[in-house]
Amino acid sequence: MEYSRFGWSAFTMDGVARKAGVGKAALYRRWPDKASLLLDALEARSAIISTISVTGDLLADLTSLGAALLEHFLDPYGWATLRAAVDAASDTPSVAGFHDRLVATHREAATDLFERYVVAGDLSSVVSADVMAEQFFGAVLMHVLALPPEERARVRAASRHVAGPIVDLFLAGARTR
Amino acid sequence: MEYSRFGWSAFTMDGVARKAGVGKAALYRRWPDKASLLLDALEARSAIISTISVTGDLLADLTSLGAALLEHFLDPYGWATLRAAVDAASDTPSVAGFHDRLVATHREAATDLFERYVVAGDLSSVVSADVMAEQFFGAVLMHVLALPPEERARVRAASRHVAGPIVDLFLAGARTR
Repeated sequence: MEYSRFGWSAFTMDGVARKAGVGKAALYRRWPDKASLLLDALEARSAIISTISVTGDLLADLTSLGAALLEHFLDPYGWATLRAAVDAASDTPSVAGFHDRLVATHREAATDLFERYVVAGDLSSVVSADVMAEQFFGAVLMHVLALPPEERARVRAASRHVAGPIVDLFLAGARTR
Repeated sequence: MEYSRFGWSAFTMDGVARKAGVGKAALYRRWPDKASLLLDALEARSAIISTISVTGDLLADLTSLGAALLEHFLDPYGWATLRAAVDAASDTPSVAGFHDRLVATHREAATDLFERYVVAGDLSSVVSADVMAEQFFGAVLMHVLALPPEERARVRAASRHVAGPIVDLFLAGARTR
C-alpha cells in the first residue's frame, strides 16, 4: 500500500487508479477525494478488537488482543492507520478531519472491552478504562516502533509470545488486587 | 518545521534552504543528503531524558519524565521524531538507516533510567527495563495520538497534571511490592 510506505504527499488518486487498474473517473465517482478513499480503506481493516474472540478470561483475551495489535501494526494497513493518525494530528490540512473517525474506531471498541472487565471486577476501577486502553495500545505500538526492521517478520510470526511480557506488566498494574 | 507537518516526500533541501535563507550549496557542504540533515536536527532536540532532573524519588521523576514526554510529542520536533520513526520503519528507502540512530537515542537513555530504579529496588525486576520503558513511552505517545487537535494546547500547558494517571497506572504494575 503506497500510503503506508510513502505517506500523504506521495499518495495520489492517480497512483491508486494505476495500481488498481481502474480509471480515475471511476475512483472519483465513489470517493470525492483521496482523504475519503484512504479513510474507507483504513476503516475496513482496522476493527482489530472485533477480530479477537473474547472469552472472558482476562489474561487470555489480552494476550489475543496484544498479539492481534502487534500483527496489525506490522501489517501495511495497520501501519497506514498509524501514519494517518500522525498526519491527522500534524495540521496536514487535508487530513484534519481524519482524527475523529480514526480515533473513534479504535477508542470506542477498546474502551468497551476494558470497561467490561472493570464491571466484571477483573480490572481495577481506580484508573479510567481510557487510560488503560491507551497504555495497552501504546505499549504494543512502541514495541513495534522500536523494532529493528529486520525483526519485524520474526515478531509477526511469534506475536503471542512477544505480547506476553507486555500483557504481564500491564496486568500487574491494572488487575484488581 | 516542514517535515513535521508534511512528511518525507514534501521535505526537501530546497525547502530547507529557502526557509533558512541560505544557499543550497551551503547545506550540501554540511549534510550530504536530506536524511542526515533531518537526523541531526532531530537528535539535537530529542534528548528528553537529559532535560529532567532525576531526584531519586520515583514518583516525582516519572511525573517529570511523563510531562516532558507529553510536551515533546506535542512539539514540532518531537512530532517530527515520531514521524521519522514511522518513515524509518516503513521501508521508505532513503530513511532506512534512521532506525538505529533514532531508537538508540531514546532507548538507551530510557532503559538506563528505568534500570537505575530496578537496581535501587524501587522498580520490579520481574519485567525487563526495556519493556517498562516501552510501556511508559507508549502510554504517553498513545495519549497524544488520541488527543483531539483542539486539546493539544491544553495538555501542553497542564502536562504534569495529565501525566498523573499515566504514571499511576504504570507504577501500580512496575513498582516493587
